Order: sequence, then C-alpha cells, then structure tokens
Amino acid sequence: MNGTLSLARIDIILSHPSHPGNIGAAARAMKTMGLSRLTLVAPKRFPDEEATARASGASDVLAQARVCSTLEEALADTVLVAGITARRRDLAAPFHWARGGAAELLAGTQQGTRDVALLFGNETAGLSNDELAHCHLGIMIPANPDYSSLNLGAAVQLMCYELRLAALSPGEPPRGEFAPATSDEVEGLHAHLERVAIATGFLDPAQPKRLMPRLRRLFARARLEHEEVSILRGLLSTIEQPKRRNKS
Amino acid sequence: MNGTLSLARIDIILSHPSHPGNIGAAARAMKTMGLSRLTLVAPKRFPDEEATARASGASDVLAQARVCSTLEEALADTVLVAGITARRRDLAAPFHWARGGAAELLAGTQQGTRDVALLFGNETAGLSNDELAHCHLGIMIPANPDYSSLNLGAAVQLMCYELRLAALSPGEPPRGEFAPATSDEVEGLHAHLERVAIATGFLDPAQPKRLMPRLRRLFARARLEHEEVSILRGLLSTIEQPKRRNKS
Repeated sequence: MNGTLSLARIDIILSHPSHPGNIGAAARAMKTMGLSRLTLVAPKRFPDEEATARASGASDVLAQARVCSTLEEALADTVLVAGITARRRDLAAPFHWARGGAAELLAGTQQGTRDVALLFGNETAGLSNDELAHCHLGIMIPANPDYSSLNLGAAVQLMCYELRLAALSPGEPPRGEFAPATSDEVEGLHAHLERVAIATGFLDPAQPKRLMPRLRRLFARARLEHEEVSILRGLLSTIEQPKRRNKS
Repeated sequence: MNGTLSLARIDIILSHPSHPGNIGAAARAMKTMGLSRLTLVAPKRFPDEEATARASGASDVLAQARVCSTLEEALADTVLVAGITARRRDLAAPFHWARGGAAELLAGTQQGTRDVALLFGNETAGLSNDELAHCHLGIMIPANPDYSSLNLGAAVQLMCYELRLAALSPGEPPRGEFAPATSDEVEGLHAHLERVAIATGFLDPAQPKRLMPRLRRLFARARLEHEEVSILRGLLSTIEQPKRRNKS
C-alpha cells in the first residue's frame, strides 16, 4: 500500500481532552504530516473557537472529526491500537520508543484493510489503566527524565512526524537549482587566483608558504557551484584589468 | 563530549516571534528534550502572561532567556548556525532534512568550545533572506506538501526531539517488571491445556485437528510471562478439580 494511503488509515484518538486549543493544535499537527482522521472521546469543550483558531489551515480536519462518548465506541472498527504513555506501565506490552512504535503502527496499516489507531490520554492524567488495557502496544516519547511533560499538541506533532517518516521516505534533501562546479572550473579558478595574488604582490612565488593550499582547502570544503566560480573569476579579471568607471 | 552537555550548548533562537504563546510552547518543548538556552530576537511581546502559561513547568527556561534586538547580537558568539525553512531557498546551503540537520548541529557542538544555534523565523513570514544568509546550513522538516505550516512551538518540539535523539541514544525500550516465561514453563502449560481439553471432551485425541498448534501459535506470539503461565495453570487446575464453594 502506498504511504499516503497508509497515513490516511491511521486514526488519531484524543481521549478526554480538557483544552480545546490542544484539539486544534492536534488537527494542525496531523494535517502537516498528511494525517486526517481525528477522533475525540468525550472532549470537555468541542466544537470551540479556540480549537478552530489553533487548527489554523486544518479546520477541515476538525470539521470531519468524530466525537464519541466512550473509547469502546471510538475503537469499534480498529484492529491495532497503540497508546502513548509517559512511563512504562504494567498493563500494556510490548513497549516501543516513538520511532519504533510508529513503524509498528504503519506496518499494521499494511496488514488487512481495517483501521489502526494512536491513542493519547488526557493532558493531566494521561491514559488510565483501563484505556491502556485496550492497547496492543505502548509507545513512549524519549524525553528529559527530569521534565517529560510534552504538550498534547506537541506530542501529536512528533508522533505524526514519525508516522510520516515511516510511511514516506523523504528522499534526498532538495538540491538547489545551481549546478556544482566541475574540477576543471575549480582548477581554472585556482590558477587565476594564484596569478592575481602574484601580480598584486600578495604572494611571493619564491616563498609561497601555504597560501594556495589553504585557499584550495577552503574552496573544496565550500563545494563551489558553477556560477560561483564565474562570479569569482569575473572579480579576479576586474582586479587584473579594472573597468573604466563613469566617475573615474 | 557527553550528550547532555552537547544539548546544553545549543541555542534555540526565535527571531521576531509574534505570539507569546509560541515562546512559552518553545520553552516547554526545549525542556522536555533537555535543552535550556533560549534567545529571542525582537519579540513582539515578552515577557507575557501567555508565554508563562504555555511554558507550564519550563518557566525557568523563559526566566533565563536572552532578549536581543538584532540577529547579529544574538549570534555574536556562535560558530555554527542552522536555519529552519519551509522550502529550499537559494541563499543557504547545504540543505538537510530535520534528522540529518540535527546530526550536523550536534556534531558542531563536539568541535571546539563555541556555541551552535538553531534559528526559527517569524510565524508568518519565516526566515528572511537576510536571516538565512547568516546560516551555515538550512534545515527542512519533511511535511505534507499541501499543508506544510507547522506551528512554531511544534517545530521547536520536533527539532529538539531530533537533537535529543542525535545526542543520546534512548537505548532499548524500557521493559516491564515481569519476567518472560521459560520454554519449560510454556511446554508445561501446553501439556496441561491439552490434558484439560481432552478431559472436557473438547479435544478428541483420535482426531486432534489443528487445535494444539493453533493455541501454540497464539501463546508464542503473545510471548508469555512467567506470571501469566502461573495464572493460566491455576485456572486449568481449577477446571480439573473445582474448588468447593461456600454456597455449593
């Protein structure tokens, strides 16, 4: 199954969310990563202006959200449920870190045609033992042991990001439009630079010291582009033969 | 250098943040991942009640935040700067995805003793070309191409998470307190189950079909724990020899 479709089969369930702002933040976080199925179990306030404001351009996710009164109702058609918890709990096993858990959940979308769900508990209390007992796996976000309290919207963002990476390899980082310089072009630049350095008296060919190797090191590290070589050579040419200016 | 110290050397810089709530969310996100150095360049409102409220337990990060009037001032002691942008831009190179960029930045903390910085632009406008020109590398968060607008606090959360993973391997997922069952224990359970299944008449030893292999498959997949085997064997023993009850 293709990755985009896999993401569309993952239900993000917020159980008993207290703050409508977090519901909006979760919707926005989901949409930025290509998820769209949001379920709310007994939200304290929903719909709500604050949810809509925080959802920003993801108001469609809010508009399509399911509202259920119980977790059992929310999970009725689901075959695999992962629950996010802040600490290892006895009732749910096996446990995964966020990255491994996302991969497990994604794999679940690729078996059969039923839905999978990622379950987040209340902002203050987290998942209850009863809620966790519905989960086939537990997921923990690796965090600072002295302060592991992620905001609910931030936790949804992070898990949806891991789900997206599990579903869709982002590929190579996008490259610029500019072509890299060829070795010939770079050698031409070095020769030109040396000529100018000698002509200006900055480089004494009898005692060249380490000037050219240092410049070579600099430009190698910079991985010059074709157009940059042209600019630098233009500059060097103008140093060799200053252009006439109107004012001079 | 140890990973915790590396994280402490990374400066999170928010340039021209408009919404104090996002400053608070960023502080909380940083602290959950073990970062603590926050710099604000020309924030629209700071300090602010909303920032403090959203920072939750990370008010110490807010209290220690530097406020600068220009990016140049913020970057004065910094040797490596990475900028977050939503799209490939010509002026900053090389570009990395979030994960690779976090690794580069972390590596930067391990060369020399000066600081490295991760720069986030204004919520609406992102980084300007001028700001991006201060960056040694550009970082993009892989996102839904149809809606890539992460909330500022969520983007800080995600990058700090990747920085934490780059600095500190989370190790194996935490295990439960319960010991796994040994093979002997599991074999004892299967023998007991079979005996009860025959005694009750559910299993005909002359025509066993696939009952025992199916049960074996189930329990293998469940990776039984020591205590679970005890519970199941207790149940089977009671089926074999019902206990006398007060009422019967």
